Amino acid sequence: MKIVANIQPETIRAAADRISPYIRRTPVLTSHMINSLYGTELFLKCENFQKVGAFKARGATNAVLSLEKNLLVNGVATHSSGNHAQALSWAASLVNTQAYIVMPTNSSKIKVNAVKEYGGLITFCKPTLESRETTLAEIIQQTGATEIHPYNDERIIAGQATAALELVEDVQNLDIVIAPVGGGGLLSGTSLAVHYFSPSTKVIAAEPEQANDAFLSFSGKRFVPSRNPNTIADGLRTSLGSLTYPIILQHVHSIVTVSESSIVNAMRFLWERMKIIIEPSSAVPFAAIMDGKIEIAGKRTGLIISGGNVDLDDLPWLKHE
Amino acid sequence: MKIVANIQPETIRAAADRISPYIRRTPVLTSHMINSLYGTELFLKCENFQKVGAFKARGATNAVLSLEKNLLVNGVATHSSGNHAQALSWAASLVNTQAYIVMPTNSSKIKVNAVKEYGGLITFCKPTLESRETTLAEIIQQTGATEIHPYNDERIIAGQATAALELVEDVQNLDIVIAPVGGGGLLSGTSLAVHYFSPSTKVIAAEPEQANDAFLSFSGKRFVPSRNPNTIADGLRTSLGSLTYPIILQHVHSIVTVSESSIVNAMRFLWERMKIIIEPSSAVPFAAIMDGKIEIAGKRTGLIISGGNVDLDDLPWLKHE
Repeated sequence: MKIVANIQPETIRAAADRISPYIRRTPVLTSHMINSLYGTELFLKCENFQKVGAFKARGATNAVLSLEKNLLVNGVATHSSGNHAQALSWAASLVNTQAYIVMPTNSSKIKVNAVKEYGGLITFCKPTLESRETTLAEIIQQTGATEIHPYNDERIIAGQATAALELVEDVQNLDIVIAPVGGGGLLSGTSLAVHYFSPSTKVIAAEPEQANDAFLSFSGKRFVPSRNPNTIADGLRTSLGSLTYPIILQHVHSIVTVSESSIVNAMRFLWERMKIIIEPSSAVPFAAIMDGKIEIAGKRTGLIISGGNVDLDDLPWLKHE
Repeated sequence: MKIVANIQPETIRAAADRISPYIRRTPVLTSHMINSLYGTELFLKCENFQKVGAFKARGATNAVLSLEKNLLVNGVATHSSGNHAQALSWAASLVNTQAYIVMPTNSSKIKVNAVKEYGGLITFCKPTLESRETTLAEIIQQTGATEIHPYNDERIIAGQATAALELVEDVQNLDIVIAPVGGGGLLSGTSLAVHYFSPSTKVIAAEPEQANDAFLSFSGKRFVPSRNPNTIADGLRTSLGSLTYPIILQHVHSIVTVSESSIVNAMRFLWERMKIIIEPSSAVPFAAIMDGKIEIAGKRTGLIISGGNVDLDDLPWLKHE
């Protein structure tokens, strides 16, 4: 595995050109009410409206379309309980190859069904990282499929970077761009795109307090892995990767953390006021704004809404009533 | 009360010009997945993203801005348990006058709070039409406020017509436009706008089976009032008005009805697939598509999503579990 990613401006432009026939150029929404409340100009880049309901479609599509044909013949494979599983299944179908998805047995039914719907072939495993990795290794040995990692892959990072590229193309002179951070695919891509295409803009990341490995790794400048984090923001439970971490160290201005209750409050606030369905991970940056952890008054602020895949039978504000 | 409304193309254009500084030009969303599924091109005019979360902001703003100053001095008044109450409260605040809202005691807490938040002064009454009307009459006598009816008013109809005007401006050559029907303010306005600005386009309305007074009035060509309808589509429980009914008879192609379960299914489908929050009334047209009551294959179809004000603690698919 390479330690230093080589993602240049032209790498991101090429990814954008490659995936543009397949993905959506998602809208940027604004709210007069929120702008008044915070004395700001806030621009939400709505990747919840993206194909498969999350920015993950960008990276997966870029990865699959970048593979040489001989690497596609036997399919692609990953382990994921979340949006990458859906995204890779969907992206594989675009090029008529098979996606093999290793999912833990405790994956939500809605995500299992979505992977099947997009044509992914699921192998269930125990809900441990070890079981996920060994099962994936077996599947790859059996099928000859090519592994597509959810975030520690240059093609994935370059693909995810295209969301921020579109944002800074559509909204000039942003002071800040805020993104959530889990494995760091979105954040590293965002920070590179902003660095190259809107260099005066700061990138700030937001993370759940209960999954604060990126915060610790960033502030201590020493990699800290994620250890069984317990957060509702299910997209943000993973550790940073060897490729994403150095990019984040170099190009991100700061990382802040928010509580679980703040995440739920922010999610509900955006549902009620913006009338958009966003998943808990997507609410983390706005939670940081609501809690005053990121000061946006007087600033033009971009915010990446990462996805909208939520189990509508299991909404967080209805859980403990 | 006049029996025949006089709403010309220039009336609608003037309404659009009058309200445009205050309301949102809402986006038109599409879904590749839905288009594939139905072999159609479907365009959703998303008034759930409108100010106050519903198209009602258009009519209320047009009505308030059209009033002569002496009629504004003592405020404006209405009885409403729904989106018109919020819309009129908000519109009154734009011109610094008071909105007096008569609401039944069984109104949802969330709607009561929204009216208060927009500055409306609430008088509660018994949950009967008689009590609503007598209480409103008393309020008007006490305050000298000007009544703004939720739909049986030319200024309201012309205001609601601007949503369809924007839709046919943004999407050319539509074969059909579908809207829900309750009191008929949105439907009459939509049918006039389409008649004037896209005359080859048919307007079709959808209504809950359990509140089918518009269907009966339309098909029998004899006015049938709504009698205590029991539908989840709370915006569509009212009877047609003396102004809206003749316009609908003249300019609407057909009215179809859908079951309660179809409304809930359609609402959930659009939440899951489009990631937008829409209220039950807004799901009625798409329910008609899902049930095959409106054939859209091979047709360019516009659909007006009327609003997105939903109590997130009380979602219909969670009620009977």
